[in-house]
Amino acid sequence: MNAIYYDGKLTYRTDLPEPQRAKGEALIKVTLRGICRTDLELTKGYMNFRGVPGHEFVGIVEDADDKTLIGGRVVGDINCGCGECPECRIDDEHHCQNRTVLGILGRDGAFAEKLTLPEKNLHTVPDFISDEEAVFIEPLSAAFRVAEQVKVINNDVLVLGDGKLGLLIAQSLAFLRADVVLCGRHPEKMELIQMANLTTKTADELLPNKKYSVVIEATGSKEGFLTAMERIKPRGKLVIKSTLAEQPYVDLNQIIVDEISIIGSRCGSFEQGIALLEQKGVKVKELIQKTYRLEKGLKAFEEAGKTGALKILLA
Amino acid sequence: MNAIYYDGKLTYRTDLPEPQRAKGEALIKVTLRGICRTDLELTKGYMNFRGVPGHEFVGIVEDADDKTLIGGRVVGDINCGCGECPECRIDDEHHCQNRTVLGILGRDGAFAEKLTLPEKNLHTVPDFISDEEAVFIEPLSAAFRVAEQVKVINNDVLVLGDGKLGLLIAQSLAFLRADVVLCGRHPEKMELIQMANLTTKTADELLPNKKYSVVIEATGSKEGFLTAMERIKPRGKLVIKSTLAEQPYVDLNQIIVDEISIIGSRCGSFEQGIALLEQKGVKVKELIQKTYRLEKGLKAFEEAGKTGALKILLA
Repeated sequence: MNAIYYDGKLTYRTDLPEPQRAKGEALIKVTLRGICRTDLELTKGYMNFRGVPGHEFVGIVEDADDKTLIGGRVVGDINCGCGECPECRIDDEHHCQNRTVLGILGRDGAFAEKLTLPEKNLHTVPDFISDEEAVFIEPLSAAFRVAEQVKVINNDVLVLGDGKLGLLIAQSLAFLRADVVLCGRHPEKMELIQMANLTTKTADELLPNKKYSVVIEATGSKEGFLTAMERIKPRGKLVIKSTLAEQPYVDLNQIIVDEISIIGSRCGSFEQGIALLEQKGVKVKELIQKTYRLEKGLKAFEEAGKTGALKILLA
Repeated sequence: MNAIYYDGKLTYRTDLPEPQRAKGEALIKVTLRGICRTDLELTKGYMNFRGVPGHEFVGIVEDADDKTLIGGRVVGDINCGCGECPECRIDDEHHCQNRTVLGILGRDGAFAEKLTLPEKNLHTVPDFISDEEAVFIEPLSAAFRVAEQVKVINNDVLVLGDGKLGLLIAQSLAFLRADVVLCGRHPEKMELIQMANLTTKTADELLPNKKYSVVIEATGSKEGFLTAMERIKPRGKLVIKSTLAEQPYVDLNQIIVDEISIIGSRCGSFEQGIALLEQKGVKVKELIQKTYRLEKGLKAFEEAGKTGALKILLA
């Protein structure tokens, strides 16, 4: 099987065995994949990952215990719980301490011809959602997770970062009718997602005040966290999304003195991502920069790593 | 006037002028003072403080615009807002960006014969509360602030640190009927506050699990934060109380992946501190180690800085 592989160095390999599905798992032929900033961080040492990266995908079920799944077009929750620990018993597999995570932790991912996932993780993609849209369901769910954790309505919300995730978060929250300021470095990217309730600013246009009661850090850079700490109001909530191989200095004294909350935010529920696409609440196809074939994956990673890159897909 | 003074070095001075009360302020003759760990941190460089430290006190009003206050026995909120900024206008002077803080920021404190505070900051001490108890109202209010920020009932609560603040926090939360585990290094200190709903453990007795849904870090040490991060459940809330001159490394990736909330917690409302004493919900006099006269303040600071010290008072 062909795949992108990381073992300290990123390579394109043609000699990998097909993944074997365990009981309760489906074997999926991947149709389309998205490269996420987390994939880039993995290649800088994050998670000490070794194997096939990739966790944003859409594909067709080739085999499964539940035969009705076969042939279906699916996306899938990337967190695979053990099913037996206290977290799994309260249906919180996202936080199972023994979990594997597709293409991130202990489970080969989507930058291969095929992958396996537990059948219960799969969501059938409605016909009116194209593959190009479906590949955004995972990051859209992660974007919407912010609104599940923090009250955004009637708050001054600042989203830092006009990367793929920042653009999705800003749209999701504005669609909920929160007043959102999106601050990024690329006006041409921010222009792609103009909509009601959303104001865009460059860093220079942002007043140097502790003005925002909710700040979402999605820059993917150390500096983004520091900017967030300079903009968050006392008693404000700072939601952090960017896992980084190299991390910024955190001033716990400021957190105490200003009574700030720092809230970690990771994956969301796929139902929310699908609903956002159904309701046409967010623009996603506009965020696609280019689609490469899987065998051009190394070139695709290079493109995805460039400053200002939008979504790079692998077909 | 006599006072303890810090200008890079802690000294006892006999040549300081009496503080001059501004309009709306009261002049207070201080009767009794408590040394807090924050005072010790100030002498290590925290806040770049210069002046008279001290913020835990009880005293008698000598002069004020409101003549009915004169002669009254009072404690006082240590945060003095500007009265005009957006925070002050919503009655949140604790977070006024132009505030002074008694003995901590831009305002001489209580380790002097006299101090000044805005009249609106003062709370009359009921007769049945002794001076030795009253001097605990400020730290008790700060301890109870945790319960104002985080739901503790029906959660597994771990308090880290059996210093003065940790002992007050553990008691306040247990008095609220939360299930509290207090973890410290001095069983003999933890024994002082035995009560219902409170279990005490040494660090060795604490299982190395991410078991607690609420953890309060009150050790006053860098290591305490790291222990807290090892004990907090996914989606848990970690309340931090210890401002430190030298700070620990913070793993933002763990915060994101486990979706932890880090919540800064500082001062609380004096009404709560007074109410806790009224209801006899917490033991405070048991926490007094020794009372020194003000002129022995340097010796008192030395004692307060020793490992395992309980509350040192200055009369």
